[in-house]
Amino acid sequence: MKNQKVLTTNYTKINGDFKGKDILSSEQFDLLSIKKLFSVTGQMAAIAKNARPSDLLKGKISTLLFFEPSSRTFGSFSASMKQLGGQTIEMTISSSSMAKGESFEDTIRTYEAYCDLIVIRHPEVGSVQKAAEIAKYVPIINAGDGIGEHPTQALYDLYTIKEKFPNVNKLHVVFFGELAHYRPVNSLAMLLSLYPGIKISFVSPPQVKLNQEVYSYLKERNIQFQELVNIDDVIGEADVLYVTRVKKEFLPAKLYKQIQGKYSVDKKLVNKMKKESIIMHALPRVGEISTEIDNDPRAVYLKAQVRNGMYVRMALLKLVLKG
Amino acid sequence: MKNQKVLTTNYTKINGDFKGKDILSSEQFDLLSIKKLFSVTGQMAAIAKNARPSDLLKGKISTLLFFEPSSRTFGSFSASMKQLGGQTIEMTISSSSMAKGESFEDTIRTYEAYCDLIVIRHPEVGSVQKAAEIAKYVPIINAGDGIGEHPTQALYDLYTIKEKFPNVNKLHVVFFGELAHYRPVNSLAMLLSLYPGIKISFVSPPQVKLNQEVYSYLKERNIQFQELVNIDDVIGEADVLYVTRVKKEFLPAKLYKQIQGKYSVDKKLVNKMKKESIIMHALPRVGEISTEIDNDPRAVYLKAQVRNGMYVRMALLKLVLKG
Amino acid sequence: MKNQKVLTTNYTKINGDFKGKDILSSEQFDLLSIKKLFSVTGQMAAIAKNARPSDLLKGKISTLLFFEPSSRTFGSFSASMKQLGGQTIEMTISSSSMAKGESFEDTIRTYEAYCDLIVIRHPEVGSVQKAAEIAKYVPIINAGDGIGEHPTQALYDLYTIKEKFPNVNKLHVVFFGELAHYRPVNSLAMLLSLYPGIKISFVSPPQVKLNQEVYSYLKERNIQFQELVNIDDVIGEADVLYVTRVKKEFLPAKLYKQIQGKYSVDKKLVNKMKKESIIMHALPRVGEISTEIDNDPRAVYLKAQVRNGMYVRMALLKLVLKG
Repeated sequence: MKNQKVLTTNYTKINGDFKGKDILSSEQFDLLSIKKLFSVTGQMAAIAKNARPSDLLKGKISTLLFFEPSSRTFGSFSASMKQLGGQTIEMTISSSSMAKGESFEDTIRTYEAYCDLIVIRHPEVGSVQKAAEIAKYVPIINAGDGIGEHPTQALYDLYTIKEKFPNVNKLHVVFFGELAHYRPVNSLAMLLSLYPGIKISFVSPPQVKLNQEVYSYLKERNIQFQELVNIDDVIGEADVLYVTRVKKEFLPAKLYKQIQGKYSVDKKLVNKMKKESIIMHALPRVGEISTEIDNDPRAVYLKAQVRNGMYVRMALLKLVLKG
Repeated sequence: MKNQKVLTTNYTKINGDFKGKDILSSEQFDLLSIKKLFSVTGQMAAIAKNARPSDLLKGKISTLLFFEPSSRTFGSFSASMKQLGGQTIEMTISSSSMAKGESFEDTIRTYEAYCDLIVIRHPEVGSVQKAAEIAKYVPIINAGDGIGEHPTQALYDLYTIKEKFPNVNKLHVVFFGELAHYRPVNSLAMLLSLYPGIKISFVSPPQVKLNQEVYSYLKERNIQFQELVNIDDVIGEADVLYVTRVKKEFLPAKLYKQIQGKYSVDKKLVNKMKKESIIMHALPRVGEISTEIDNDPRAVYLKAQVRNGMYVRMALLKLVLKG
Repeated sequence: MKNQKVLTTNYTKINGDFKGKDILSSEQFDLLSIKKLFSVTGQMAAIAKNARPSDLLKGKISTLLFFEPSSRTFGSFSASMKQLGGQTIEMTISSSSMAKGESFEDTIRTYEAYCDLIVIRHPEVGSVQKAAEIAKYVPIINAGDGIGEHPTQALYDLYTIKEKFPNVNKLHVVFFGELAHYRPVNSLAMLLSLYPGIKISFVSPPQVKLNQEVYSYLKERNIQFQELVNIDDVIGEADVLYVTRVKKEFLPAKLYKQIQGKYSVDKKLVNKMKKESIIMHALPRVGEISTEIDNDPRAVYLKAQVRNGMYVRMALLKLVLKG
């Protein structure tokens, strides 16, 4: 748990105009851009549900360039293009093969010749941002850079929150679990900072607290937030409970053992929650939320959240590729 | 060779109406449904040969979710969607990665949000059927569940038989080889039981005889069948010789050695066959049929059978997705 | 470095008519065919840049059957089909899985049933040519057979040369590096032999000189060429400097150590080149060309060459599939 930098700054702001822009960080978004994105998202949901075939992205090609395996995000982006009649070039490249082969630069320069947009996932923080600097002709979308950011995840998390609670400013959002290595927490917390009335609680073992840079980011923006160890202190007030996966791969074995299973959600905990609240998880989960919760009306992780992921990505692809 | 259950029962019958239904087992089919499917199959063959581009499945997306590697069936389903202007999301997930990652349930729930239909192959008997129970919004097609069933294979095998012999009721079908672990045998034998006049011979080493459940299935339906050890006892009467691969991966080394090479087809055996007969194999073959047979007019495994596989799958996809 | 055969001969000539023909070797091309191909290539470039969606290959399906991993060529062919509205079936099959499984013949016979054309890469010389003999219904395109040929690479290399120098007959082309195991050298040298006025220099360590068969091929055609060890002897005269990758996988460790890094291109070398010259590389590079050269106007490897690869393949696919 060395103090790794997770945020890059000084991005081009979206300012309501997505066309041709890289989508790299939550930091690029203001309320206007979010409003526009979510308005188009509603149209995309309607297409996915009732209005296919769509030719909206016919003739457009996105490359999915994944430098670590992913089934969920990969499938979501692949579906998003195809739902709109677009096509994909799909390539998973293991970091090991990169090591002995050509440079990251040459790979990006090559793929941008083949397509209109590149979606990149990479295990290293900042590498997708680097790809955006390298690419000269096509926009880049960040599908997760190590423990850095995962802005499209955060955007559909926010969309899911707003579906239930149109007025985000009044909410109390509780992040719960291992927060130090979980990129959706970074990206969503940054987005939530656009709502000055919001209250955020970060509940985690002390060893895996919120990333320091994100902490500072929120402080600078005068967001009301607190860090806690015990979920019972806030569970009764939470409008949104955002559960994270304890990332075994990032933790010392001893610490993993201490944490695993202690920051999880079962019926007993859910019973302490408000009737009008929602339980979110970016998935995959490995036991953090008991399956007995799945049919609770407050559980949105397997229903609204997954679907909204595709709708928001459809909207982003549409806006970046065609305006 | 423990006594593993290979059949699940109590499926929703097709009853001539495919739209939105899961395709999990041969048991779902009656003669009416087969007639309808094969009538559409003829139309599909015409499209594949002469009438593309087709927009019949334009805007439709099928996920190919394969939990074990496959090139043949994977390629066949991929082609079937694309021949009709549809699209696919393609994902091979190793069972090992599932073991450490999220649950099968969550994977199915996720992918069904992205598409209109999921084709699943899985190494465990019954898992595709389980997927069908999990999925709430899209139909599931079984592309092989362990040593259980492989209904689409059986359907195109039957189509291939009917192309040559429209009156299936009069046929003598001989299954030949390792029968205990070969799912197409199960599924095809069950389909053939729809024809009360049929005669079936199962020729295999005694250690790898027909599965006991399929045996009972045929008995209950009063199908005339016999189990034999020596192919010479029936080869002269066979209308259909259905050859199987000896599945090394399922057999003790000693038994494999005993069997391998003894249940294979060469020119000498084929010379004992009727002029008007056909030789089938679900492929891949590993030496069970000598390549010297490939150009024999009775050999249909590399010609009609492979092509019919695509046509029947095109028809199934069309009927399930659009009725 | 045993004396492996790298060329097969007696191919069907293109003679200006591509429809339905296999594309296996540079040897199939005459000047008329090249003229036709490059004329269509210009149209394809226009489509890729400004005229999508294109329905030129709508309803056409190409299988990409790669028996060794490739990201660059794989992506280029995938994009080429999709830029024209076509679809692909994509399959990477490791040689090891082929070893235990079915035969190469059965694989080809199977895949040709699914599609209209097969693009094949294979680690063994001559195997793509063998596939073309096996396939009965669809044309085959060679995307690289071991250290043999890579004709589509050579074609877009030639296109890139002609873009800069319409009169190829007057050029001095210098191949530089490890030439014995680099298939694009073979295929491009053969294509260049169509221009009787050309001059070619092969600069390499003596242990990895030009393949003997290609040497004889050029001799028979009375092409003016020389073999050299020292790049300084010709660098000032080169119109085209074609740099190759030292293929570690084909060389004894000791020899690799001797060669690696000595046959590379840096600013000092480039400063000796003519103002009006171009530097090419088939990529991937592993240090043979310093990145400080990338922005030199003579460097075409990351710009024109990659893009032209897609345009030429689009033209080939269009001509072979539709005439």
